[in-house]
Amino acid sequence: MDTWLTSLITSTPQEGFELAIKLSRMGVKYTQTDVEVLKKLRPDYANNADSLTAASQVVAINFQTVAAANNYWREK
Amino acid sequence: MDTWLTSLITSTPQEGFELAIKLSRMGVKYTQTDVEVLKKLRPDYANNADSLTAASQVVAINFQTVAAANNYWREK
Amino acid sequence: MDTWLTSLITSTPQEGFELAIKLSRMGVKYTQTDVEVLKKLRPDYANNADSLTAASQVVAINFQTVAAANNYWREK
Amino acid sequence: MDTWLTSLITSTPQEGFELAIKLSRMGVKYTQTDVEVLKKLRPDYANNADSLTAASQVVAINFQTVAAANNYWREK
Amino acid sequence: MDTWLTSLITSTPQEGFELAIKLSRMGVKYTQTDVEVLKKLRPDYANNADSLTAASQVVAINFQTVAAANNYWREK
Amino acid sequence: MDTWLTSLITSTPQEGFELAIKLSRMGVKYTQTDVEVLKKLRPDYANNADSLTAASQVVAINFQTVAAANNYWREK
Repeated sequence: MDTWLTSLITSTPQEGFELAIKLSRMGVKYTQTDVEVLKKLRPDYANNADSLTAASQVVAINFQTVAAANNYWREK
Repeated sequence: MDTWLTSLITSTPQEGFELAIKLSRMGVKYTQTDVEVLKKLRPDYANNADSLTAASQVVAINFQTVAAANNYWREK
Repeated sequence: MDTWLTSLITSTPQEGFELAIKLSRMGVKYTQTDVEVLKKLRPDYANNADSLTAASQVVAINFQTVAAANNYWREK
Repeated sequence: MDTWLTSLITSTPQEGFELAIKLSRMGVKYTQTDVEVLKKLRPDYANNADSLTAASQVVAINFQTVAAANNYWREK
Repeated sequence: MDTWLTSLITSTPQEGFELAIKLSRMGVKYTQTDVEVLKKLRPDYANNADSLTAASQVVAINFQTVAAANNYWREK
Repeated sequence: MDTWLTSLITSTPQEGFELAIKLSRMGVKYTQTDVEVLKKLRPDYANNADSLTAASQVVAINFQTVAAANNYWREK
C-alpha cells in the first residue's frame, strides 16, 4: 500500500479526530481492498443506527491513540 | 466540516462528559452526513435497550480521553 | 441538565465502582431523556444475559477512568 | 449494597484476575439485583460461545484496571 | 482453581501475545468450568468469522495489559 | 507456532498500523489454526459492513498498543 500515514501529530484536536476517522477507515480498507465492494456496502451501515454507533466506537478508540500522541493538545 | 473542536479541556467533569457525548455524536456524523437520515434513525436506537447501552459505551470511551486530557480534574 | 457530576474522586474503590455505574447510566440518559421510555426498556435488558454483559462492559470502561482518577486508591 | 470492594491490590496476578472476574459479575449484579433471575439466565450464556467471549472481554477490561493498580506485579 | 498465573513478565513479545491468549481463554473457563461443554462449543465460534474477530478482540485487550507490564519489551 | 513477533518497534506509524493488522490476524489464527477454514470464512466478513467495522476495531485496539510501544513516533 502507498504511504498514507507519516505522523500522528496534528495541529488541533479536530484534525486529530479526523485522523482517527481516517485510521478507522484504513482498518477497513486493509481487510477489504476492493473499493467497489466498499462503496456497495456503504448504504448497509450508513443507514443503520447500530452500525453507525459501532463506527463511532472505532473512531473513539483511534482518537484515544491520536490524543495521547499529541499530549491532548494541552498547550494549545 | 466547520470548526467544532478546539480543545479537550473543560472546567468540570460534567462538561467533560458532555464533550464525550459530542465526540460520540460527531463520530456518527462524519459517517452519515445527512442530518435528515440521522433524525429518521433516532427512534431505532433511542427506544432499544441494547442500542442505548452501545451508545453509552462509546461515550465511556470518549470520556476516558477527555478525562485524561484534563488530568481527571484532580485539582478541582 | 442539572449538575450531577462535580468530581471523579471517591473515598473507596467501591464508591468508585458505583460512580462508574452512574456514569454508564448517564450515558444512556443523555441519549434517551424520557424516563418513562427508560423504565419500559428496563425488562428488555435486565432479563437478558447478553444485555447484562454489555452493561457490565460499559461499567468496566468507566471504572477504568474513575480508578485512574483516584490513583487506584493505592494509599488506602 | 454491602461492602464488597475495599482495595484493588492483590498479592498475585492470579488473584488480580479473579478480582477482575468479581468486578465483572458485580457490574451485572448492580443492574439485575434479583439473584434468582441471574441464576435462571446463567445457562443462556454459559452454553453460548459468543456470550462466553463477551464475558471474557469484560474480564479483560477489568483486569487492565487491576493490573495497573498493582503496577503489574512487577516486583514479584 | 489451581495456580496458573504467577507473572505477566515474558521474554519476548510473542510469548506475551501467547499469554494474552491464555488470559482470554481463562476468562472463558472461569465462567464455564465444564471442559466438555467448552469442547462442544468450539466449532460454534472457530468456524464463524464474527466469532473469531470477537475472540481476537479479547486477545488484543489482554495483550495491551501484558505489553504494558513488560514495558513493551523496548530493551530487547 | 513459529517465531512471528520479535519486536513492537517500527520505523513509521504506518508500519505500526500494519503490525497492528498482523496482530489482529494472529489473534484469529491462534483460535482457528486451519488456514483452509480461514480462507473459506473470508467472504463472510469481507463483504459485510458490520464485520469490517468489527475487524477495524480490533486493529484500533492493537494499534493503541503498538503506538504506545513506539512513544507515538513523536521524534520522527
